[in-house]
Amino acid sequence: MRRLESLALRTDGEQVLVLDQTRLPHEEIWIRPTTVEQMVNLIKDLRVRGAPLIGVAASLSLAQLVERGASEGEFFAAAAALREARPTAVNLMKCMDRLTDLARTRGIPAIPEEAERIFQEDKELCEQIADHGQNIFEEGDHVLTHCNTGGLATAGGGTALGVIARAHRAGRKLHVFVDETRPLLQGARLTAWECAKLDIPFTLICDNMAASLMQSGRVQKVIVGADRIAANGDFANKVGTYGLAVLAAHHRIPFYVAAPDTTVDPETESGQAIEIEQRDPKEVRSTLAPVCEVWNPAFDVTPAYLVSGWILNRGLFTRTDIENGLLRSRGVAAQVR
Amino acid sequence: MRRLESLALRTDGEQVLVLDQTRLPHEEIWIRPTTVEQMVNLIKDLRVRGAPLIGVAASLSLAQLVERGASEGEFFAAAAALREARPTAVNLMKCMDRLTDLARTRGIPAIPEEAERIFQEDKELCEQIADHGQNIFEEGDHVLTHCNTGGLATAGGGTALGVIARAHRAGRKLHVFVDETRPLLQGARLTAWECAKLDIPFTLICDNMAASLMQSGRVQKVIVGADRIAANGDFANKVGTYGLAVLAAHHRIPFYVAAPDTTVDPETESGQAIEIEQRDPKEVRSTLAPVCEVWNPAFDVTPAYLVSGWILNRGLFTRTDIENGLLRSRGVAAQVR
Repeated sequence: MRRLESLALRTDGEQVLVLDQTRLPHEEIWIRPTTVEQMVNLIKDLRVRGAPLIGVAASLSLAQLVERGASEGEFFAAAAALREARPTAVNLMKCMDRLTDLARTRGIPAIPEEAERIFQEDKELCEQIADHGQNIFEEGDHVLTHCNTGGLATAGGGTALGVIARAHRAGRKLHVFVDETRPLLQGARLTAWECAKLDIPFTLICDNMAASLMQSGRVQKVIVGADRIAANGDFANKVGTYGLAVLAAHHRIPFYVAAPDTTVDPETESGQAIEIEQRDPKEVRSTLAPVCEVWNPAFDVTPAYLVSGWILNRGLFTRTDIENGLLRSRGVAAQVR
Repeated sequence: MRRLESLALRTDGEQVLVLDQTRLPHEEIWIRPTTVEQMVNLIKDLRVRGAPLIGVAASLSLAQLVERGASEGEFFAAAAALREARPTAVNLMKCMDRLTDLARTRGIPAIPEEAERIFQEDKELCEQIADHGQNIFEEGDHVLTHCNTGGLATAGGGTALGVIARAHRAGRKLHVFVDETRPLLQGARLTAWECAKLDIPFTLICDNMAASLMQSGRVQKVIVGADRIAANGDFANKVGTYGLAVLAAHHRIPFYVAAPDTTVDPETESGQAIEIEQRDPKEVRSTLAPVCEVWNPAFDVTPAYLVSGWILNRGLFTRTDIENGLLRSRGVAAQVR
């Protein structure tokens, strides 16, 4: 395996290393998962997270398995286990399908190189998303974002936060409002950490303050990532996204979703067909009364009619583009499989 | 001073006792504030909270001061300090004005009895609110609420949660969804605790899950309390309320506000004139990266056009009633001063 490097995922030439995202921002601890089972648990526990990143990390985990001499049977079992680690983000499934398809046609020796290619492609997809998205921002825009969609969520510079970072580097004076993103605080812990590293001015808010912030006129754009985009443009993303989309529409604030083609699933007709992962109630009630019923969906679905623009690696698209079948095209499927 | 008893405020005949609401639900610790300065700090720190309750608690604190032989000068200085403890909820200001007005006309010996009357009236106002509000619910309704508006927030049975509790006792099979209410978790800590005590079935959610819950069809009514209702029907309440109102309108879910006349401020023309308290950033970032900018408004303002009904102690009122000047009437002011 070649040496690969990104903010939360790397290889040292032999082993895969992942940054434990549950320990950020307090500690930067790199874990070396030596088995696929360990990687499955790292993904389930959100130590490795971000729709693009979990697909890439799972791919490298399979590469490591093959390089250590696994049999075909072990490879396919491992790919199946990884594929089921989390149900909502489609990137993981697509990466696993891409590798198992390849193993069937060319055998498992082809896996390590393909996994490395997936890693590099993810970096390039992020650059392309930033290329197409950076001009949505005007000088001085205040931008609201949710969850974490930066270098920690991908092998590259990120999706939504990558677009913000590119515009920031290009000299636009942006200010980012970071939703803390309950229950696991990916905004407060991860996006705040990335913004500080990137020297992007930001303000942390609780999720329930976004409406009031919009009402006060202090938000000019909303931009979020996605875990799965359906053929009709509906998309699943971290819970809280749908509410922001409704609030943005109410306040006539443009609402963008940024994602690579690996997040587009032409086989999912609409958002209603996306399985929403329900997570452990303990995530919500940990510091509170221990015994109570909790509803803890990890994601929600934003219908296409609330989206102003889809920022993909292929370009910036409007609702009309989506209605004309852009996301159903074979071009998309061919490009990402 | 007579013996008075409520869920979070009581007197033992000589002293005022308050339940430390920051320690709930883990510990039930009663504090005996011996000075007005202590009561001011208890209110500032949200150990005593809830718009009606802080007005009543401050009143009893003045009663205790007078019974301990304070001078007129000390009394007026104490009332002024209490009046400024928090800026948004109008109940505190109205209670202080009522007592200082009385002191000017009848002297401070009249204060203890009047403070006791305020306590008793608050109980009655809660009962009247519940009388008028209970029939908004239909059998089997799922009801979303925010923050805490129950027995902990008043000297009686509560405002919004009091309406829910009354309907529950009347046998309607309600299920309550409790917003955890970041940053201080009054929903998760306090409303959950009250619902459990009252045996009302409930489910805890993070604030950012409300939109998805509404989208799924699982919310039939939203009901919240208020910290100040302006003459035009706009009202301030715990931050997050305004977002719920927009989301409820989007999903065509009736949205109610329940409050006593002591929360109505005819002298505040609209929500724009309500001062919104900004609180310490530490409340938001305590467990996170220590150095970052935080926006932490304690309240937000919901415009009247998003409200389906105002449940007051005088009755259940519509937007037309409000537009016709109901909240401007001298009747209101006379009743609560």
